[in-house]
Amino acid sequence: MDSSIVRRFQAGFHWAGVEVLDYKAQGSAPFKDVSRQVLFSDPDQAAQLRYFEVQPGGYTTLERHEHVHSVMVVRGRGRCLVGTDVHEIDLHDLVTVPALTWHQFRSEGAEPLGFLCMVDATRDRPQLPNEQDVQNLRKHPHVAAFIAV
Amino acid sequence: MDSSIVRRFQAGFHWAGVEVLDYKAQGSAPFKDVSRQVLFSDPDQAAQLRYFEVQPGGYTTLERHEHVHSVMVVRGRGRCLVGTDVHEIDLHDLVTVPALTWHQFRSEGAEPLGFLCMVDATRDRPQLPNEQDVQNLRKHPHVAAFIAV
Repeated sequence: MDSSIVRRFQAGFHWAGVEVLDYKAQGSAPFKDVSRQVLFSDPDQAAQLRYFEVQPGGYTTLERHEHVHSVMVVRGRGRCLVGTDVHEIDLHDLVTVPALTWHQFRSEGAEPLGFLCMVDATRDRPQLPNEQDVQNLRKHPHVAAFIAV
Repeated sequence: MDSSIVRRFQAGFHWAGVEVLDYKAQGSAPFKDVSRQVLFSDPDQAAQLRYFEVQPGGYTTLERHEHVHSVMVVRGRGRCLVGTDVHEIDLHDLVTVPALTWHQFRSEGAEPLGFLCMVDATRDRPQLPNEQDVQNLRKHPHVAAFIAV
């Protein structure tokens, strides 16, 4: 990562010296039109700050893990599933995803949904839902509607 | 801290359930017109995310510490001293303050300077400069001009 003291914000939600990465390897998990930028990842810090951007109509992977997500919306708006609740989220709203809680983010409207996500540098791998997990989630009609692609 | 899953952004850069705190105890260190809001502080996470706001004409304490600051401007603009360099900073710019590096933030213009700051939850206390430190900093005319109150 670029170790400059100041890294400038650039048009289109890019930053000087920050690479736009695949959200995940294609085919490794279901998602649509999401990119990832690692804004801060310092061996002297216990956490990382990443920027994820979900294009109009896109969504992140439905997943859970032991590690906690601390999220702030910084572009556009969307909806997120956390547990079995669906929340509308707008600019600068804060979202906490507790440990082992199913979650997914979707953009809403014409602008991409962009959010910061703070995570521990040392963390477990995401778990994908199995068929039983999906059945359990689908018992809630609003969740079924949300996770339907 | 409010443990709601979603905490809404409110007018004037406040968040539902997030208290606006003194930056530091008055008289404990030099600063002017700075407030602090702790956005994320979770016992299950190794880091915290805070929002600091510097009113027009205000400035943070000139200090250093072992722990690293990872900063993103989210409101207004300003200037910051990091080491012996002064940087202009604007919306969404990223700033890294390395270990044991003197630093200070000042707002510029009519709008407050607001920035996110990620730090390790376990961290050392800030150190204030002694007279020799200040003399050394003032050897650089641009630094002398910056730190002059």
